[in-house]
Amino acid sequence: MTQLAAAPLLLTPGPLSTHPAVREAMLRDHGSRDPAFTAMNQRIRDQLVALVAPGDPTWTCVPVQGSGTFGVEAALGSLVPLNGELLVVSNGAYGRRLVEIARRLEIPVRVVKAPEDEPPDPNEVARVLGRNGGITHVAVVHCETTTGLLNPVGAIAAVVARHGRRLIVDAMSALGALPLLAADTPALEAVVASSNKCLEGAPGVAFCITRVTALREAAGQARSLSLDLSAQWARFNQDGQWRFTPPTHVLAALDVALRLHAEEGGVAGRGARYAENCRVLVDGLRGLGFQTLLPDALQAPIIVTFLEPGHPGWDFDAFYNALAARGFLIYPGKLTERPSFRVGCIGQVFPDDLRRFVAATQDVLLQLGLPDGAPSPSIGAAP
Amino acid sequence: MTQLAAAPLLLTPGPLSTHPAVREAMLRDHGSRDPAFTAMNQRIRDQLVALVAPGDPTWTCVPVQGSGTFGVEAALGSLVPLNGELLVVSNGAYGRRLVEIARRLEIPVRVVKAPEDEPPDPNEVARVLGRNGGITHVAVVHCETTTGLLNPVGAIAAVVARHGRRLIVDAMSALGALPLLAADTPALEAVVASSNKCLEGAPGVAFCITRVTALREAAGQARSLSLDLSAQWARFNQDGQWRFTPPTHVLAALDVALRLHAEEGGVAGRGARYAENCRVLVDGLRGLGFQTLLPDALQAPIIVTFLEPGHPGWDFDAFYNALAARGFLIYPGKLTERPSFRVGCIGQVFPDDLRRFVAATQDVLLQLGLPDGAPSPSIGAAP
Repeated sequence: MTQLAAAPLLLTPGPLSTHPAVREAMLRDHGSRDPAFTAMNQRIRDQLVALVAPGDPTWTCVPVQGSGTFGVEAALGSLVPLNGELLVVSNGAYGRRLVEIARRLEIPVRVVKAPEDEPPDPNEVARVLGRNGGITHVAVVHCETTTGLLNPVGAIAAVVARHGRRLIVDAMSALGALPLLAADTPALEAVVASSNKCLEGAPGVAFCITRVTALREAAGQARSLSLDLSAQWARFNQDGQWRFTPPTHVLAALDVALRLHAEEGGVAGRGARYAENCRVLVDGLRGLGFQTLLPDALQAPIIVTFLEPGHPGWDFDAFYNALAARGFLIYPGKLTERPSFRVGCIGQVFPDDLRRFVAATQDVLLQLGLPDGAPSPSIGAAP
Repeated sequence: MTQLAAAPLLLTPGPLSTHPAVREAMLRDHGSRDPAFTAMNQRIRDQLVALVAPGDPTWTCVPVQGSGTFGVEAALGSLVPLNGELLVVSNGAYGRRLVEIARRLEIPVRVVKAPEDEPPDPNEVARVLGRNGGITHVAVVHCETTTGLLNPVGAIAAVVARHGRRLIVDAMSALGALPLLAADTPALEAVVASSNKCLEGAPGVAFCITRVTALREAAGQARSLSLDLSAQWARFNQDGQWRFTPPTHVLAALDVALRLHAEEGGVAGRGARYAENCRVLVDGLRGLGFQTLLPDALQAPIIVTFLEPGHPGWDFDAFYNALAARGFLIYPGKLTERPSFRVGCIGQVFPDDLRRFVAATQDVLLQLGLPDGAPSPSIGAAP
């Protein structure tokens, strides 16, 4: 038996710390064509649809094996027609990834860019759509995990709707904790997310929650066999089966994770816990002299980017390792311009865990000979 | 805690019954960037390479999230150059899938076809290669899971080598139990398989064992971002990391599964157990009057196709459900022409399990009012 006590707390954007019941669901082998497993798939798909379009039979959910990026590539490669064009609204690594996927799939793509620490401007989106009638789809990241910035999906959706185009949202690190309802989001066509972020499942499956009409129109146009959402949807309709071997254990874990999500009060309940996690984390690390990249108004309660201190004694690897030795795994930064590190607020992590993390960080700063305690200009931030 | 006692024995081509230690490895959450996890990845990759090219540093292994088909699509889409052409040697559903992937990726493809119950003819491969100098790669399935037929990969490889082309083998249901060594297989360029067949891991990750030179030449040519083997290989070389969130629990399970594989005596040991499983299964069901699709000389000890009996009382669903109620899950047939069902010999399944299965089958035949006992022409096979 694995030494569970030794598992560190994952303060990362995922994979993250899961509930023991989620992991215990993986102790059973399932036959992928067995009726009990088929029923579990249907239950998972129904619960995922209910996160975006509760009670609306014009929406469905198609899971896809792999990481979130596999789901995003499946959505773009399946839903954008062969004569379609894409506009990506980008202010971080995951926006850039949308562009990279489109280019690889030879989908014509334009980009509205914003700096990594600023939300994109919906008016700029409007200008580009106004000038380019060939753009069929707009794609945007809900919470840009690069920084933790919450993008203004509602305002962008309004613009997309006014121009009669369709919106695909990469809600990877947001779905399940931040609301994104089809009823409130005009032009919304598809939402992509994965098992292992705010839903707190194990990694290994992504999914696209989408309009049935979009899948119907997409028949035969996917650029890939493995990542063809329309073909997988048709197969579910035919006999409830996956086309290719599903990650049965990961799905069993997601089934339990979705039950726990509902028990916690759904999106509102989970979002409230993460918001409190985020408050404890930000207040605590600011109290030690760290600076956040983002002002609080732009910060999603998912993952927080802290600037690396300007102190000459700072060494990220030493800091990471000392925290790891105390049972906390953090994440390196992903900014293109400024040295930073990231701490996640998601997973089976509670405000008391973050209080312990803040105390451990203070301890590590002392150990590394860095200024600690009250906010100090000397720890500052690297330029 | 899940009721483990209730889990049925999976006599399928995968996902299949795994060892408890494999599942228990999934009880721990791993940070995907943590050095311990990175080291585990490297260990897995090294062990997989050793199955095909032991001690040969000119070979490497690139895992890919998803099912085996994702791995096959990654291999074809990454390794066949943009001006390349593919010849698929096909005698079943998985051969046809290779063709479908190539067509979807717009790779020019020719096919050498054989009937589902016959091995393909290497001379026919030679003729097509001789006439078509533009063909760069040949792809073939090692054990065609449609039927359980073992294809003559060695003879095909010799032809491919003689014509100076490269061979990609879909060894999905064979790797780990049937030998396939680079040293004995001229022209071998890549072998694709997945975690959840003869390696007895959990499903959710595939991999391509391939020549380093092939990945180097493939830089920038993949038709997909998610399924780009060359980019993932470059990333492993750079910092040991996955480009996109890996299925951490599934990988931890595979790590244990590979240790158990080595402890069982590697390919020889596992192959011997499966061969004994197959013998008990075939002898037992023939004793009850069933007929196998294939003669013994063509049968791989992986999965056996039995023809559905011609008896008017036969009903596959009733047969399946009665066996499921007794704790055995079998698999429907996949032949295009003749009604059949399949029983797997792989996974944590032992000769005594198959003896119990044969007894349960006899019991089910009695229950369903079908002829049982000694071979009887009255049970026969449907035309």
